[in-house]
Amino acid sequence: MKSIYNFSAGPSMLPTCVLKQMQQELLVYGNAKASVMEISHRGPDFMQLAHKLEQDLRDLMSIPKNYKVLFLQGGASSQFSMVPINLLQGKTKANYANTGHWSKKAITEAQRYCKVNICTDSTDNNYTDIADFSAWNIDNNAAYLHYTPNETIAGLEFDYIPKVDMPLVIDMSSSILSHQIDVSKFGIIYAGAQKNIGISGVTIVIIRDDLIGKAMKNQPILFDYATQAKNDSMYNTPTTFAWYVASIVLEWLKKQGGLKTIEKINKNKAKKLYDTIDNSNYYTNLVAKRYRSRMNVPFLLADEKLNSLFLKQASDNNLIALKGHRSVGGMRASIYNAMPEEGIDSLIQFMHKFEKENG
Amino acid sequence: MKSIYNFSAGPSMLPTCVLKQMQQELLVYGNAKASVMEISHRGPDFMQLAHKLEQDLRDLMSIPKNYKVLFLQGGASSQFSMVPINLLQGKTKANYANTGHWSKKAITEAQRYCKVNICTDSTDNNYTDIADFSAWNIDNNAAYLHYTPNETIAGLEFDYIPKVDMPLVIDMSSSILSHQIDVSKFGIIYAGAQKNIGISGVTIVIIRDDLIGKAMKNQPILFDYATQAKNDSMYNTPTTFAWYVASIVLEWLKKQGGLKTIEKINKNKAKKLYDTIDNSNYYTNLVAKRYRSRMNVPFLLADEKLNSLFLKQASDNNLIALKGHRSVGGMRASIYNAMPEEGIDSLIQFMHKFEKENG
Repeated sequence: MKSIYNFSAGPSMLPTCVLKQMQQELLVYGNAKASVMEISHRGPDFMQLAHKLEQDLRDLMSIPKNYKVLFLQGGASSQFSMVPINLLQGKTKANYANTGHWSKKAITEAQRYCKVNICTDSTDNNYTDIADFSAWNIDNNAAYLHYTPNETIAGLEFDYIPKVDMPLVIDMSSSILSHQIDVSKFGIIYAGAQKNIGISGVTIVIIRDDLIGKAMKNQPILFDYATQAKNDSMYNTPTTFAWYVASIVLEWLKKQGGLKTIEKINKNKAKKLYDTIDNSNYYTNLVAKRYRSRMNVPFLLADEKLNSLFLKQASDNNLIALKGHRSVGGMRASIYNAMPEEGIDSLIQFMHKFEKENG
Repeated sequence: MKSIYNFSAGPSMLPTCVLKQMQQELLVYGNAKASVMEISHRGPDFMQLAHKLEQDLRDLMSIPKNYKVLFLQGGASSQFSMVPINLLQGKTKANYANTGHWSKKAITEAQRYCKVNICTDSTDNNYTDIADFSAWNIDNNAAYLHYTPNETIAGLEFDYIPKVDMPLVIDMSSSILSHQIDVSKFGIIYAGAQKNIGISGVTIVIIRDDLIGKAMKNQPILFDYATQAKNDSMYNTPTTFAWYVASIVLEWLKKQGGLKTIEKINKNKAKKLYDTIDNSNYYTNLVAKRYRSRMNVPFLLADEKLNSLFLKQASDNNLIALKGHRSVGGMRASIYNAMPEEGIDSLIQFMHKFEKENG
């Protein structure tokens, strides 16, 4: 079978060897005499999986000892609520950077709980640029600063970390594990799994110990980080299969050489694709070069009436899920860790051919 | 390979043909050119799956048109919060029946939001009996009545439906789809999937239309049923793989003949096992006969020092996960829909042998 390259923004492509391992051990998991889907999360087989999952993540990201790692349900959207519920701690304001669709959703939810100070706003440039940090308007009496290092829809990625005297909170759903990061600079890092970690259903939260334990009392107990930390993310039945998939993906990532290696690979993949766009007279990417995402590469065709034809022919060439988000139009190639360089090469080859035939 | 029978309380056994179908189509789902785990929840392939899933559930349970069906995240524990958040609607009290571990958890969470009137309490009989409905103390000014038709840990199941002039809300996690039920009698029916629906990660909520839309405003937006109903349970990325598993389980259930047939099979399975216990001098079940669960059958050995030996020998005979909950001790056989009658027969055979050798 010819390889198929899946550019879906999420849920998204998994490494083929990960899928094959799942398939192979789907009926019987290790010594459990049952599928990993069928066993108790409190039994020895699953507990071992859970311990290894956390340890592998700690190793890969060099997570300091004074951080808890939680595996929760509800997606990043649940974190949009949990962050203010847990971090306001009596304060009435929080700083939020508005640099895209997901930042905006986090802001709207935070406004249920506090006054949001929008400390920088990329709405005017249609989420294609980020202001220099010196131009941000930080409220120093606010409880924390929240931002979104990579915006999946417009394809906008920070290349700096804001410096503030309050906890930094980031929604890293679309870029976690794609490059190295100094965890100690952050109060909370959270991420839905369905891009670089595995499948939808588990949300990773990496949180500094001292931020846990001061949640609002009149909110769901599941939304108190203390509940989750005290119960090792098993206050109630976790999404065991999503944990399992994450555990195989992390093993795969370690075998690839970890974040240092994958970062290099990702940079190279993105460079190839952006170079193709920039060197053509047919494709354009609107994002300020400095802030172009290494994970999500949107591009427009010179003639948008040919979008459907492009998608159809791409799919015929086993390049799937390239349709851009409706708010941006055109195409979007999401090139997370699981996308091999051959997938990029194949896409580039097709783009050249399409330009030649239709440009 | 000799069949293995898995008596886990949840996550629990899946029908073998369901597992095999998953395995077979794990790499490529239908015409999607990718695994079902890798495709967008908003794409045509997954949307089709989602529509069929809902329709199959509606068919199986004869869900009336004025009920919404939601597929949420967070497990039954999230419903412990969502129910008061959405149903209090300005009232300050709610009725809760306390008939077991899970009822108690629902009560504790509801107490964050309102005054709970415990209208019946089985604590004194150690959750082995339920008071006759005439003895319940219902507060008619309360917003709703919540109860747990089947308690997984003690193995206690209602054989009647309380009659009240307020919405009835039930946590049906461990008995949904195991027997026929008149949905129109209830305001909300909710259930975690990891027993009779599929794998952990999706929570089904069946809710009468008129109860939606009056949630408290200062709570997470995900916990407002209106958010979920308006977005067809896709306000954010759902646990797509758990939906997929549920969809195959429901297809399997339809092929079995639906709820009428499975109810008959389940009754017969439970009867065989309880008869074995009652006809022995070695095994006991402490639950009042009228309220014995058809899904979870706890039993004690005459000599509890032999518990480990029983579990070891059972496992050697491919009868696994029989250990009782620590609060009850002894054994527990969870015999959900996926447990075939042969599994019961095999367990009974082993119980006879063990009694003969050790009784």
